[in-house]
Amino acid sequence: MTDNTPGKQPLTLLGLGAMGTALARTWLAAGHPLTVWNRSPARADALAAEGASAAGTAAEAVAANRLVVLCLLDDASVGQTLAGADLAGKDLINLTTSTPGQARALAAWAQERGARFLDGGVMAVPPMIGAAGSGGYIFYSGSRALFDAHRETLVVPAGTTYVGEDPGFAALHDVALLSAMTGMFAGVAHAFALIRKENIEPRALAPLLADWLTAMSPAVHTTAAQLDSGDYSAGVVSNLAMQVAGSATLLRTAGEQGVSAELLTPYLALMELRLAEAERGNEEGTTGVIDLLVR
Amino acid sequence: MTDNTPGKQPLTLLGLGAMGTALARTWLAAGHPLTVWNRSPARADALAAEGASAAGTAAEAVAANRLVVLCLLDDASVGQTLAGADLAGKDLINLTTSTPGQARALAAWAQERGARFLDGGVMAVPPMIGAAGSGGYIFYSGSRALFDAHRETLVVPAGTTYVGEDPGFAALHDVALLSAMTGMFAGVAHAFALIRKENIEPRALAPLLADWLTAMSPAVHTTAAQLDSGDYSAGVVSNLAMQVAGSATLLRTAGEQGVSAELLTPYLALMELRLAEAERGNEEGTTGVIDLLVR
Repeated sequence: MTDNTPGKQPLTLLGLGAMGTALARTWLAAGHPLTVWNRSPARADALAAEGASAAGTAAEAVAANRLVVLCLLDDASVGQTLAGADLAGKDLINLTTSTPGQARALAAWAQERGARFLDGGVMAVPPMIGAAGSGGYIFYSGSRALFDAHRETLVVPAGTTYVGEDPGFAALHDVALLSAMTGMFAGVAHAFALIRKENIEPRALAPLLADWLTAMSPAVHTTAAQLDSGDYSAGVVSNLAMQVAGSATLLRTAGEQGVSAELLTPYLALMELRLAEAERGNEEGTTGVIDLLVR
Repeated sequence: MTDNTPGKQPLTLLGLGAMGTALARTWLAAGHPLTVWNRSPARADALAAEGASAAGTAAEAVAANRLVVLCLLDDASVGQTLAGADLAGKDLINLTTSTPGQARALAAWAQERGARFLDGGVMAVPPMIGAAGSGGYIFYSGSRALFDAHRETLVVPAGTTYVGEDPGFAALHDVALLSAMTGMFAGVAHAFALIRKENIEPRALAPLLADWLTAMSPAVHTTAAQLDSGDYSAGVVSNLAMQVAGSATLLRTAGEQGVSAELLTPYLALMELRLAEAERGNEEGTTGVIDLLVR
């Protein structure tokens, strides 16, 4: 049981999956009066035993508080869940995983119904929620007034990063970072595959990999500066021609080690294509590859 | 001009490209008597003006010192350059970019000719050579006796990491790290492409990307522990089924933003394949993808 500290913002949370449950527990622990609802009621009952109020329907849960947080399965669930609820005057915060387009459509739909809207992109897994220093945080975009009004409540589960009035920007930043991480993990998978048949322990390679990736991650600043200026040769220390030549060693090593290069070849192919097209392959680095991805 | 400090190890360096020249300058600056040779002599002449001895032929350069460092264009250049040299009693260190197989073959060839052999994988670009704290270093593998004998000389241009008697291991570690970095850069390229048509400055996204990739890089330790134990479900916080579901949002967002998903799809496809094959897709994370890469 938790004391509801006087003055703590009451709120409603719809959706008690792993992420929703983690959010609920941190708000309860911080003393926020919390109304919860979940499609299958067992999880709401469990949180009621920890101090939450379990609402019988989503509409009742929405009616209970002005501040309403959504953390549902997917975008389609949001429309279904809110179908019978009165949103007039509500402050709606959507933490359900969405695309930028889905977030923009939901924002328009909520505003038509009289609600202020903020979309969130959660850069954390449930164990990082409420854990200071975990590296996790939440992107927010949409109503700045809503964000400012509820900032004290929003910082309880995780750090906040507001990225603009466009309600699609939180999801766009979220997906951009997850996409970059997906690439990193693909590269790491290839690296571990290379040593599979050798007498090298994965736990011996891991710290070398982590340190190297950390040391190389500031290269994104060089890329960003080149994209901003349009000068793709600024600050280049390893030109495209050298990198294309070096990729032969990566591919040949994969072959020697019996490892499929399928996770590397699309990027290496784009480097080659850019080198063939570019007039300045001896001056540019790899930033031009980005141009080839955008239709 | 540089004083040759008494007691500093004399050595020979073959190959004066950007990397070789950077190496030469740091050894000269540290007071090592240095003999150099380059296929086109102009670069050797330039270094002679800085205190090096320029040899007329590769064989003469090899004859000048016991310790001989190679930093040539590619593996084929090594055989061509050393063809007429007497290697008996030499300590040969190859920093030429190689595959593990090429390094092993060169080690055997050099040992047959009476030389001790050490292979190196340079984890640095030329501006990082001789720059303390740059994050650059050199992997070494092969003769431990040679490495120990010349450690003081080897630490002059960059930090050293000895990874085993197998002469292929330096190149294997080098390629593993560069492959992982290639994946990371591919993911970063996709991320920057996603914001291309939006009012978001690349330089605003860059620090978020760098911090996120740095925060996520320790995931390699979880992967390594799973590979070592064979238990791919240990420590999993986001299971394969959830990640496959989440990949739909990545792909749909790429579509909305007009960005080709070609850099992400091979990894996402392997996740789906593993989920279809695995009996424990609700317990495992993505480590099983590595099994699918190894033939």
